[in-house]
Amino acid sequence: MKIGIAQINSTVGDLTGNLLLASNAYSQLILDGAELVIFPELALCGYPPRDLLLKKNFGRDCQEVLEEFARKTGSCPALIGFPQQSVEKGRELFFNAAALCTNGIVAQIFQKRLLPTYDVFDEDRYFVSGEAPLSFTYLGKKIAVTICEDIWNLDKDLHMSDPLDEISPLQPDLLINLSASPWHHQKSYQRKELLRRVVKKLTCPLLYINAVGGNDELIFDGSSVALSSNGKTIGQAPSFESSCSVIDLESGPAEMKDEDLLEMESIHQALVLGLRDYAHKSGFRKGLIGLSGGIDSAVTAALAVEALGKENVIGISLPSAISSDHSRDDARALAQNLGIAYHTLPIQKIVDSADHELAPLPAAMDTDVTEENLQARSRGLLLMAVSNKLGALLLTTGNKSELAVGYCTLYGDMCGGLAVISDLPKTKVFALANHLNRSGEIIPQNTIEKPPSAELRPDQKDSDSLPDYEILDGILHSYIEKGLSIEALTAEGFEEETVRKIVSLVDRNEYKRKQAAPGLKVTPLAFGIGRRMPIVQKYSN
Amino acid sequence: MKIGIAQINSTVGDLTGNLLLASNAYSQLILDGAELVIFPELALCGYPPRDLLLKKNFGRDCQEVLEEFARKTGSCPALIGFPQQSVEKGRELFFNAAALCTNGIVAQIFQKRLLPTYDVFDEDRYFVSGEAPLSFTYLGKKIAVTICEDIWNLDKDLHMSDPLDEISPLQPDLLINLSASPWHHQKSYQRKELLRRVVKKLTCPLLYINAVGGNDELIFDGSSVALSSNGKTIGQAPSFESSCSVIDLESGPAEMKDEDLLEMESIHQALVLGLRDYAHKSGFRKGLIGLSGGIDSAVTAALAVEALGKENVIGISLPSAISSDHSRDDARALAQNLGIAYHTLPIQKIVDSADHELAPLPAAMDTDVTEENLQARSRGLLLMAVSNKLGALLLTTGNKSELAVGYCTLYGDMCGGLAVISDLPKTKVFALANHLNRSGEIIPQNTIEKPPSAELRPDQKDSDSLPDYEILDGILHSYIEKGLSIEALTAEGFEEETVRKIVSLVDRNEYKRKQAAPGLKVTPLAFGIGRRMPIVQKYSN
Repeated sequence: MKIGIAQINSTVGDLTGNLLLASNAYSQLILDGAELVIFPELALCGYPPRDLLLKKNFGRDCQEVLEEFARKTGSCPALIGFPQQSVEKGRELFFNAAALCTNGIVAQIFQKRLLPTYDVFDEDRYFVSGEAPLSFTYLGKKIAVTICEDIWNLDKDLHMSDPLDEISPLQPDLLINLSASPWHHQKSYQRKELLRRVVKKLTCPLLYINAVGGNDELIFDGSSVALSSNGKTIGQAPSFESSCSVIDLESGPAEMKDEDLLEMESIHQALVLGLRDYAHKSGFRKGLIGLSGGIDSAVTAALAVEALGKENVIGISLPSAISSDHSRDDARALAQNLGIAYHTLPIQKIVDSADHELAPLPAAMDTDVTEENLQARSRGLLLMAVSNKLGALLLTTGNKSELAVGYCTLYGDMCGGLAVISDLPKTKVFALANHLNRSGEIIPQNTIEKPPSAELRPDQKDSDSLPDYEILDGILHSYIEKGLSIEALTAEGFEEETVRKIVSLVDRNEYKRKQAAPGLKVTPLAFGIGRRMPIVQKYSN
Repeated sequence: MKIGIAQINSTVGDLTGNLLLASNAYSQLILDGAELVIFPELALCGYPPRDLLLKKNFGRDCQEVLEEFARKTGSCPALIGFPQQSVEKGRELFFNAAALCTNGIVAQIFQKRLLPTYDVFDEDRYFVSGEAPLSFTYLGKKIAVTICEDIWNLDKDLHMSDPLDEISPLQPDLLINLSASPWHHQKSYQRKELLRRVVKKLTCPLLYINAVGGNDELIFDGSSVALSSNGKTIGQAPSFESSCSVIDLESGPAEMKDEDLLEMESIHQALVLGLRDYAHKSGFRKGLIGLSGGIDSAVTAALAVEALGKENVIGISLPSAISSDHSRDDARALAQNLGIAYHTLPIQKIVDSADHELAPLPAAMDTDVTEENLQARSRGLLLMAVSNKLGALLLTTGNKSELAVGYCTLYGDMCGGLAVISDLPKTKVFALANHLNRSGEIIPQNTIEKPPSAELRPDQKDSDSLPDYEILDGILHSYIEKGLSIEALTAEGFEEETVRKIVSLVDRNEYKRKQAAPGLKVTPLAFGIGRRMPIVQKYSN
């Protein structure tokens, strides 16, 4: 059987746009010889639709779009994800469903059984667990249909039942899984391992089709894949881009390259896709970045150029009296390397005016963090003015290490509509900078080599306030992503005093993260919708 | 039986502090003659603990604190809420539990059956549904124990099973419900109605004990209550304050006032409590407010004075060249009425400096919303500097109507650690101002009577950009809280053009709300953790 993989990039809530994408992909795949066309989970409404599902007409509107899609189908069936509204006992419920559309109608509906409620997922908020049969027969083959989480219990063992246990006795000829599975680095290994286990359990070929594109914080990598019943890759769709491809299940294990992107290249492609989709899906062509001469803004600018095109990226240098010459030189060199527009807007007059107004206040005499914040906020003020004037999306440039310990200024360097690298620890920012320079200098070498500094005090270095980034990132990973206690962290070999300091900084800066721009998720646990800490709380362990 | 109601104000994660509160309340209530002492849901860890539950040691630490509490108990049992960690099949699970502690030990554990996943609740993210027996016998009485949502299915019908159906045949002598049920206006009526239905179903007395205090966005009102088997109020704890009180179930229906606070007074008390707890629980004694002479900042300042004391509130006037004389006069009059410190920090020099730096930019010539935002952001810059200098919590003053349509400036008037009235529609802000003035002028009359204006352009009025607030608030209520479509809104009698404009403003300002300060929830549906809209999305209906 020839299967058409419609790896489309849906936009959340854009029912008309997604319908068009789906119809075009269907037509294309028919032309390419597909006998069955498959789309990702909730492809018609985009994933995750979140509280759009609570709007009175959303279910009805999705149903209408589904029927319109079905009307365009002919004898080649299409399997497409959509939210199925159902009224039971007078109550409106949703199933996370997949519709088998053929010959103008919706012929059968499949419903997701396992609803994830961990990390970024809230599916129990919207959906009820499905009860519909799990298979259909087509061209003499028994085809089982699952949706995303339905196959993950093999790996996670989080649910009381496992749909694969119900599917296994059916002895299907093919298992299909429709997914919208958010990407993070290392996921591809985890997923590949899982898919092999699924195939091993069912001893039939598997077709895994995944959404692609960025929706808010989440990036979907596509990477749809077909495995033979012995776990070999039969066919593969590209990663981080939309595509339509036909895979012939009968052709047997093909000579596939079956190689994964290296970690840095996958992070690179993920961030470019996430940035591009956030900007374009919200109507921005242009991006704006404050260039400090440091590595974070340099990497962000380089990603923006790839995502939006160099003619659509504007770099602004915002020097103060404290800024070093090398900052300005490095910022200018970067802008030249990237070929982007570059302006200089000094902040000193604004800082001086603010200082002047604040002078009569009690307690205004001592210089403290206030003055550092004033500089950062004067930059934010100007950048937002430029953003308003030019209609450009301000990209904020902070990394995960800074955001974790609050080494950033609310309403200052945290200004911006999207935080491009806020889920990348500083050590990975360096690695990404080197990766971006792999075929020639884009990020100026001096930017990579000089000691990181916020340049908010004369001769300030990050290392004045923070441990070395290798140590900091190690502590942060264990504390935030692994949830380890102070005791366990010291047992891992970190110095207790340092651990206590960092843990305290992370905990008491929750209020800053509450007001942070959405950040592209690239690790298994990002700040944002997948991490829900109280702001005011006193547990620190 | 004499029941001690320990209506304590727990702080999330403050295990040691909550233990102390609980132990003191227990001792006090024993002295007052209690034969059984009852605490709210999750009283030992505070509600909602959110992702603290995912930290490796949190369950163990809660268990230790529970055992320490149990060791302090004597022959009078205490029933207290805590998160019970349990390991099954190698997996760590939590039950939302209540421990019956007596004679130094934990004698029995009750587990919540129904886990809410709507509005602000994520309980399926952390907890599994309990299976423990639902009753115990004490002093010859059969006492059934439920936790919060367990009794709400009678009202909401959201769950497949109902623990009350299991309790009913037990014919208990008393039903206890431990709650941490977030307050919103009109909730007391809804709750009273529900409790009466529960009593009617079980034909036994009911003891409902609820948490009190503010934790982040949520305000708990206490208002614990005992009902006789015929639905009469036997005893009642105060609203919006901690208390220890003993209720004698045998005394029969007492002559209770059984009267509810009027809506405005309950909103008033809720906001004062929420503000005080947010500040004090996060270590702030002082609050800081930018006073524009308008009604939002005036109401916020009046609430801050009640919450923090007038000696701890600082008002700052931040006039520009555009500010009217009456703005300054009204701000000063308010500060005098409240008896708070008052400073004037003009912003014009900062605005001019910024304009000067921006002048060379392309497209900088025309005056547009940029200049309005610059003023708001200059104010934010100065207010944050004062906040830093004085260690005072900046309170942001925007109302729900503004926040809904984005009639506010990110990093400008949206600066602040807490949004005190951001869940109050503008029309309710007026009502609250009048309520605050009920025994004499606190909010200057002119502040209430003059047409609302952002004063960011000469002679600007809110009504230049927005419909009358009565109409706006009506549309917003139907669109946001009721989830109605454009079609349904026009059917309600609103003009279609106005509806479309407002709906579009609400939808495209999601990005501002993403970065808004946490706001105290006082309506059934507040922006914040209980409303989870995608930022980039294209569904508008």
